[in-house]
Amino acid sequence: MTDFFHGIDKIRYEGPESDNEFAFRHYNPDELILGKPMKDHLRFAVAYWHSFAWPGGDPFGGQTFERPWFGESMDHAKLKADVAFEMFEILGAPYFCFHDVDVRPEGEGFAENTARLREITDYFAEKMENSDTKLLWGTANLFSHRRFMAGAATNPDPEVFAFSAATIKTCMDATHKLGGENYVLWGGREGYETLLNTDLARERAQAGRMLQMVVDYKHKIGFKGTILIEPKPQEPTKHQYDYDVATVYGFLKDFGLENEVKVNIEQGHAILAGHSFEHELALASSLGIFGSIDMNRNDYQSGWDTDQFPNNVPEMTLAYYEVLKAGGFTTGGTNFDAKLRRQSLDPEDLILAHVGGMDACAAGLKAAARMLEDGKLEAARNERYAGWETSDGRALMESDLETIAHLVEDKKINPQPRSGRQERLENLVNRYL
Amino acid sequence: MTDFFHGIDKIRYEGPESDNEFAFRHYNPDELILGKPMKDHLRFAVAYWHSFAWPGGDPFGGQTFERPWFGESMDHAKLKADVAFEMFEILGAPYFCFHDVDVRPEGEGFAENTARLREITDYFAEKMENSDTKLLWGTANLFSHRRFMAGAATNPDPEVFAFSAATIKTCMDATHKLGGENYVLWGGREGYETLLNTDLARERAQAGRMLQMVVDYKHKIGFKGTILIEPKPQEPTKHQYDYDVATVYGFLKDFGLENEVKVNIEQGHAILAGHSFEHELALASSLGIFGSIDMNRNDYQSGWDTDQFPNNVPEMTLAYYEVLKAGGFTTGGTNFDAKLRRQSLDPEDLILAHVGGMDACAAGLKAAARMLEDGKLEAARNERYAGWETSDGRALMESDLETIAHLVEDKKINPQPRSGRQERLENLVNRYL
Amino acid sequence: MTDFFHGIDKIRYEGPESDNEFAFRHYNPDELILGKPMKDHLRFAVAYWHSFAWPGGDPFGGQTFERPWFGESMDHAKLKADVAFEMFEILGAPYFCFHDVDVRPEGEGFAENTARLREITDYFAEKMENSDTKLLWGTANLFSHRRFMAGAATNPDPEVFAFSAATIKTCMDATHKLGGENYVLWGGREGYETLLNTDLARERAQAGRMLQMVVDYKHKIGFKGTILIEPKPQEPTKHQYDYDVATVYGFLKDFGLENEVKVNIEQGHAILAGHSFEHELALASSLGIFGSIDMNRNDYQSGWDTDQFPNNVPEMTLAYYEVLKAGGFTTGGTNFDAKLRRQSLDPEDLILAHVGGMDACAAGLKAAARMLEDGKLEAARNERYAGWETSDGRALMESDLETIAHLVEDKKINPQPRSGRQERLENLVNRYL
Amino acid sequence: MTDFFHGIDKIRYEGPESDNEFAFRHYNPDELILGKPMKDHLRFAVAYWHSFAWPGGDPFGGQTFERPWFGESMDHAKLKADVAFEMFEILGAPYFCFHDVDVRPEGEGFAENTARLREITDYFAEKMENSDTKLLWGTANLFSHRRFMAGAATNPDPEVFAFSAATIKTCMDATHKLGGENYVLWGGREGYETLLNTDLARERAQAGRMLQMVVDYKHKIGFKGTILIEPKPQEPTKHQYDYDVATVYGFLKDFGLENEVKVNIEQGHAILAGHSFEHELALASSLGIFGSIDMNRNDYQSGWDTDQFPNNVPEMTLAYYEVLKAGGFTTGGTNFDAKLRRQSLDPEDLILAHVGGMDACAAGLKAAARMLEDGKLEAARNERYAGWETSDGRALMESDLETIAHLVEDKKINPQPRSGRQERLENLVNRYL
Ligand SMILES: [Co+2]
Ligand SMILES: [Co+2]
Ligand SMILES: [Co+2]
Ligand SMILES: [Co+2]
Ligand SMILES: [Co+2]
Ligand SMILES: [Co+2]
Ligand SMILES: [Co+2]
Ligand SMILES: [Co+2]
Repeated sequence: MTDFFHGIDKIRYEGPESDNEFAFRHYNPDELILGKPMKDHLRFAVAYWHSFAWPGGDPFGGQTFERPWFGESMDHAKLKADVAFEMFEILGAPYFCFHDVDVRPEGEGFAENTARLREITDYFAEKMENSDTKLLWGTANLFSHRRFMAGAATNPDPEVFAFSAATIKTCMDATHKLGGENYVLWGGREGYETLLNTDLARERAQAGRMLQMVVDYKHKIGFKGTILIEPKPQEPTKHQYDYDVATVYGFLKDFGLENEVKVNIEQGHAILAGHSFEHELALASSLGIFGSIDMNRNDYQSGWDTDQFPNNVPEMTLAYYEVLKAGGFTTGGTNFDAKLRRQSLDPEDLILAHVGGMDACAAGLKAAARMLEDGKLEAARNERYAGWETSDGRALMESDLETIAHLVEDKKINPQPRSGRQERLENLVNRYL
Repeated sequence: MTDFFHGIDKIRYEGPESDNEFAFRHYNPDELILGKPMKDHLRFAVAYWHSFAWPGGDPFGGQTFERPWFGESMDHAKLKADVAFEMFEILGAPYFCFHDVDVRPEGEGFAENTARLREITDYFAEKMENSDTKLLWGTANLFSHRRFMAGAATNPDPEVFAFSAATIKTCMDATHKLGGENYVLWGGREGYETLLNTDLARERAQAGRMLQMVVDYKHKIGFKGTILIEPKPQEPTKHQYDYDVATVYGFLKDFGLENEVKVNIEQGHAILAGHSFEHELALASSLGIFGSIDMNRNDYQSGWDTDQFPNNVPEMTLAYYEVLKAGGFTTGGTNFDAKLRRQSLDPEDLILAHVGGMDACAAGLKAAARMLEDGKLEAARNERYAGWETSDGRALMESDLETIAHLVEDKKINPQPRSGRQERLENLVNRYL
Repeated sequence: MTDFFHGIDKIRYEGPESDNEFAFRHYNPDELILGKPMKDHLRFAVAYWHSFAWPGGDPFGGQTFERPWFGESMDHAKLKADVAFEMFEILGAPYFCFHDVDVRPEGEGFAENTARLREITDYFAEKMENSDTKLLWGTANLFSHRRFMAGAATNPDPEVFAFSAATIKTCMDATHKLGGENYVLWGGREGYETLLNTDLARERAQAGRMLQMVVDYKHKIGFKGTILIEPKPQEPTKHQYDYDVATVYGFLKDFGLENEVKVNIEQGHAILAGHSFEHELALASSLGIFGSIDMNRNDYQSGWDTDQFPNNVPEMTLAYYEVLKAGGFTTGGTNFDAKLRRQSLDPEDLILAHVGGMDACAAGLKAAARMLEDGKLEAARNERYAGWETSDGRALMESDLETIAHLVEDKKINPQPRSGRQERLENLVNRYL
Repeated sequence: MTDFFHGIDKIRYEGPESDNEFAFRHYNPDELILGKPMKDHLRFAVAYWHSFAWPGGDPFGGQTFERPWFGESMDHAKLKADVAFEMFEILGAPYFCFHDVDVRPEGEGFAENTARLREITDYFAEKMENSDTKLLWGTANLFSHRRFMAGAATNPDPEVFAFSAATIKTCMDATHKLGGENYVLWGGREGYETLLNTDLARERAQAGRMLQMVVDYKHKIGFKGTILIEPKPQEPTKHQYDYDVATVYGFLKDFGLENEVKVNIEQGHAILAGHSFEHELALASSLGIFGSIDMNRNDYQSGWDTDQFPNNVPEMTLAYYEVLKAGGFTTGGTNFDAKLRRQSLDPEDLILAHVGGMDACAAGLKAAARMLEDGKLEAARNERYAGWETSDGRALMESDLETIAHLVEDKKINPQPRSGRQERLENLVNRYL
C-alpha cells in the first residue's frame, strides 16, 4: 500500500440522504435496474490518462499537480500503477483503460517502448489477479510525441505510418493479454493544421488502410473485443478526420468496415462538433455502430476540450436513455476521460471527482430506466409516426414520384400540421428526474 | 421594360482601375483563364429566392423592401419575372435558379400550385428564347409553408411525404422543360427540433427512399442534369440531416446513391458546420461528389445563416483553387444564394451587390489560376508526400501490422519530423493575390 | 369567456408525485421559502410578446399558429387581451408584461398608435380590476417596424430618434397608468449591421442622451418603478450596444446613470454573449445593477436566440441562488420571454409550456434556498478568501508596489497553491437538487 | 554571432513583383504613407514570448521545437537573447517586447527571479546600444507558474497578490530601464474556473487596487510610457475579467483610471469575445482608450487562442483604417503575439512567418491610407448622419420626451427609411485593395 490516499476508505453506497462526501448517494452497484445490476449497466472505467498521467498543464501554464509517481523511470511507472489500483479499489471501479504512454516512460525508440509496455503489462496482469477491476480498453497514444506532429496513419512520412502501425500492434497485444474488452483508436492528429499542405484523398486512403490492418490483426490474434473509433471534430488540429459519428460512418462505409468497427462517443467531443450527446448516441445506434461512451462533459461555452467530470443529471438521463434504448452496452462501458480542474490538487479531489461523476451517472441511469419503463415517451413518439404503419403509409415507401403526384392530385391530399408537443415532452422528461 | 432599374445600364468590364461603381473591375466574361473564358469557369447564377422573393424580414422585424411585384397574383409573378430577366440582362448573368414558391403565388392546394408553376414555366420559357440566361437549377421549397413544419420527406405524417414527392415531381418537370442543368434538394426542415419526438432511423429511411425516387424519376424523364444535395448543419431546425459534405457522403453510401447525387456547397453552411469553405470543396472533390457552389458568405461571428454577398478575395481564391483542382464545374456553377442586407433598400443596391460579388469571384478565380499555373503550391504538397511514392512507401500500404512491427524493430525506424511550412505556404498564397 | 382554452381548468399544486400534466408539481405559490411565499420570490410574469403576438415564423418559414385574435383591428386586440387574461388566471400568474406593438395594431402614424395604445391600456386597466395579475413591466417595440431598421435612439436619422422618444413616452405613460413595477428598454436595433456606415461615438452619445431623457421623464411623472436595460450581444444586428452586463455597466458609468438604471438579464442572451446565466446575475449584483430576469433559455448549440421555455433544474438552481444572494427581487421578477416551438400548435401547448417552466423555476428556487440555508457553499467560499480578512491581508490592499516588493523579499514570501475544490463544490451543489 | 539563422541575410524590400521568399514585397520601412514613414506607422515589435520561449506544445502534445537556447541556465538565456537580437536585425524590427519569464530562467523565489531579471536587463541594455531595436513594452508573466493557478491580483491568497505586486514592480523597473514605451498587463488567470468558489466583488476590488498601485508606481518612478491592459474573454480560465474593450472600459471607469490606462487589443482575443478586430479598435478609439495592437489572428473556427501570424490583407486594411482614423499609434505599435504552427520547425519558418506578417500589415496599411485619403468612405458615413448636424437635429439632443412627443404629433413626423448601402460600401473597400 502506498499512502497516497491515506485516510480514504472504500466508498460505499449510503443513499440519497447521506451527507457524507465520501459515500455514493446514487450508485449502488448491485441494485437491479430493469433487472440488471447497476454496475453492469454502467460499466464504469477509470482512465489512466487524465487521472494519473496529466500534470495539470494548460496552454498558459505548466504542471500544478505534484505526484510522487511523476518521473521517467519504470519505478515511477509501477508506483503509478500501485496508486491507480488502490484508487480502483477505493471506488469499486469495475474497469480501467489506458494509453501506452500513460503507463510506461518513453523509451529511446520502438524496441524500448515495446519492452517497457510488456513489463508494465505483466505488472498489471499480476495486479489484476487480485483485483475486481478489468480492462475496458487499451489504446496507443499516437499524438503526443513530436514524431506524430503531422499525424500517425495519415502522416505524409511513411515511416511514421510504420511506427504507428507497429505501436498499435504492441498495444493490441497488451490489450489482448490483459483481457481488454475493446481496443480504441483516437485520431488526435489524424487531420490537418492547414489544407495548403494536405492531400485529403491520400490521407483518407492511409487511414482506411490502417484501420483494415487493425481489423485484420484483431482477427489474426483472436481478439474478441470491439474496435472503437472515438470521434472528435478538432483540437489539437484545425480539422480531424473522425469529426463526428456521421463522418465516421461514411468513412467506415467507404472502406467496408461498418460491421467491424464501432464508435466510442464522448460528450465533450459531441458538443465541440455542434451536436448534443444524445444525438450522437441515437445516431450511432440507428446506424448500428454504437459502442461505448466517454462520459466527460465539455463546458458548452469553452471552445476547447474541457473534459470535465459530469454533473448535470438531466443531461445524463437523456444519454443513458439512448444507451438503454440501444440495448445497453455489450463490450462498451462508461469511461471518464475526465480531468480534474488543474486547481484540484489534493488526493481527495481525485477520489471525489469520480464519486460525484459516478453518482451523477447512476442518478441519470435510474431516471432513464424509469422513463423507459413508464413508456409514455416512446408511446408519444410511436403515435406521432403512426401514419407510416398503415397500409397507405407503407405503400408510399414503395411508390414513385409520378404515381404519388397522381394520388395527391386525385385525393386532393392537403396535409394538416399537428402539434409536435415539444414542451409537453420536456415536461414529461422532468417528471422522471 | 419595367422601370424598376430605371437609369441602370448593362454592366460592362472596365478593368481594375475603373472607379465606376456600375462597372466590372475583374469580371471580364470572355477573357481566357487557363484557356477557358472566365464566364465558363464561373458560371454565375442569380438566385430568385433572395433577390426577388425575400421581403427583408428577420426574426425581429418584418418587411423592409417595397417591391412592385410583392403580391399574391399571377400578374405580380409575371412582373417579378420581367424585372428578374431585366436584371439578368443588366448583369450579363449566364444563369438563374429558383424555388417553385419564388416564382408563383401559393395556391389552394397541389393542383393549383402545379397549374401556376406550369404557367410561369411557360412564361420563363418564352423569355429565355430572347435571353442569354439559362437555368442552372430548379428546386422545390419544402420548408416555408406550415405543412412542412415537421419536415418534408422525413415528416412523421405520410401525407406530407406524398405532398412533397408530388411537388418535387412538378419542379423536376419544370426544371427539365426549361433545360435546367441541375436539380437541387435543400432539406431545411429535414431534421428535428427535439430528439424527444424523433425517430432517426425511420426518418433516415424516408429520406433515402425519397432520394431514390428522385433519381429514378430523373432517369425516367431523361433529365440529363445532376441531382444536388445542399448540406446545412442547422437552422431553421436544431439539427439537419444533410449536416455537411461528410455526412451527406455517408448517407449516399448508405443508400447506394454516391454515383447519382452530388453536393451543392454553400460557403455559409460550411462555416456553420465548423468547416472552412475550401475544406468542404476539397472533401467533396476527394469523395467524387463535388457538384456546384453557393458563393454566399456567412459572418463568422453570427451563429445564423447571414447569406451575405461575398467580398473577401483571399477566401474566394482558396475556394476557386479547389474548384480548378477538381477540374472545374461540369453542370454546376457559382450561385449567389445571397441576400441584400435588409437596410439595402434601393434597386442600385441589388445590382451593385451582384456586381461586387461577381467581381470578387472573378478576382479570386484569376488568383487561383495563377497559383495553379505557377505550380509551386502543388509542388510543395507533392514533395511532402514523396515518401509514399517510393517502393517502400507503396509496399507499406499492402503490408500488415505484424510485418510492419518487425520492420520497425529490425530497421530501428525512428521517424524525424519535418517542417510543415504552413506560414511559408500562406505567404506563397498571398503572392498570387 | 372566450373558449380558446376550453376544457382547461385553473392549474393547481398537486406535489411532486402528481402525474397530472395540468398540475404544478413544484410551484406552490403560498409555500414559504426562507420565510417568504414562493410566489413573492419568483414573481412570475407572462410575456405577451411571444405567447400572444408571435405567429410561429422563423427565417425559413411563416406563420404556423392560427389564433382567432390574429388580425389588425382593435377587436382582435381586445380578443387577444381576453384570452391573455384567461391564461393569466389559469396559470395564477401574478404578473404580465408587454410591448406596445404586442397589444395594439399598428396605426398610420404616431397619433393613431398612441390612441390605440391608450384604448387598450384602458381595456387592460378594467380587466386588472378583476384580476390578481399585475404589470411587471411595459416597453416599446422599437425594432420591428421598418422605420427602426437602422436603430431607434441610435438611428442616423434624427426623425427616428424623435419618433422613438415620443413612443417611449407613451409606453411609459401606459406602464405608469397600469401600475407597472418597471420599464424595460431592449435595444434590438441599437447596434449596427456594418461598421462601415456607423459612427460609434455619435450613436453612443445618442443612446446616452435618450436614456437620460427616460430617467428624467420617470422622475417627472413620479413613476416609482425601475428603468431596466436588457442586454443582448447580437441578433438581429451584427453587434448590439447593450452587449452584456459588463458593457451596460460601462455605458451607465459613462453617462452617470449607474444608480438610476438596472438590468433585466435573459438566460439566452447571457449565453449568446459567451457567459453563463449565473455569471451575469452575480456580476450585476456585484455592480449594484441587478434588476430582473428573463428566464428563457437558449439552446447552447444554436447561434441565434432560441428563447425556449426553461427546463434544466440544476441551471435554474444556480440562477436563483444568485437571486437569493442578491437579496431577491425588489421590483423585478421572473419573466418568460419564451416562445413555444413553432410546431407546438395547440392551446394546451401554450399552457403546459408555462406550467413546466414555472415548475422548473420553483424546483430551482427550492434547491437554491436549501443550499443557502445549509450554508456549506458560502462557508467554503469565505474560507477560501480568509487570508484577506487578516490584518496582513487588509494592510496589503492599502500598500504600494515598492513596499510590497520589500515585504516579499524580506519575508521570502513564496505562496503555496491550495486546492480550488471545484469538483467537491459541484458535488455539493448536486446534493441540494 | 550564433549560427542559428545561418545563411539568412537581412530582409530587404524588393517590391510586389519579387518572388524572393526572403524579401519584403510591401513593407518598405522608409516609404512615406500619409507623410510618415511606414515604419513609424506600423511600429512592429517582435514578441519574445512565442518566438523564442514557446516549445511547440499544445494540450495534446509536447515540445516540437529543438532550440539550442532551451534550458534553465543564464547561459541559455543569453544565447536566447543573442539569437533574438540577430532576428531583430534580420527583420529590421524596430521594437521587441517580453515577459519576465521569457527572458530569464525561473529562480528559487522572488529574490533570485529579480536578480536574474536584472542580469538579463543589463544584457539587453548592452545589446540595445548597438541595435536599432527598442523596447515596445515589458510585462510580467503572472499566469504560468503554479503559484498563479488561481489568479495573481485576484487570487484568494493575499500572498499571491503580494508576490504579483512585487514581480510587477521588478518588471516595471526593467521596462523603465530599457526605455520601454509601454507596460502591459494581461490577466490570463484574473478570472475564474468556477463561479462556485469565486467572490466577484472581492476579486474586482483586488484588481482595481492593483491597477491603482501600478499607476501610482509609474508616476513615482517617472515612467512616461503607457499602462496597457490586454483584454481576453476566456482561456485559460472559464471567464476572464478583462473580457473585451467594453468590459475593461467599465472597469477603468469604476476605479477612475480611464485616463491613466489604455488597451492593447489582440485580433485573436477580439474574435474569441465575439467581436471583429475593427470593432474593438473603433470602440477603444471612441472611448479614448486605444493604445496598441497584437496583430496575431485567431482561426475563426477554433475556439481557443490560435495566435497565428496574420495574412488576410482585407482584414488588416480594416484594422489599420481604424488605427489611422484614431490618429495612429502614439506609444503603441504592432506586436506579433503570434506563434509558429508547431510543425514549423525550421529557423526559416520563424523568419518567414514574420516577413509574411509584416508584409500583410504593410499591404493593409497602404490600402487603408488610400481609403482614408480618397475620403469616399468617410463622406458616405458623414452624409448618413447629416440630419444630426442640422439645428433641428442638435435641438433634439437637448430636448425631453414630452416635448419631443408633442413635436412628433404636431409635425406628424413619420420617418422614411433610407438605404444603408452596405454592399456598396463593401465594394468600395475592395477598390483600395
Ligand atoms: Co475530450
Ligand atoms: Co475521450
Ligand atoms: Co445559406
Ligand atoms: Co444555399
Ligand atoms: Co431572447
Ligand atoms: Co428577453
Ligand atoms: Co492570444
Ligand atoms: Co496578445
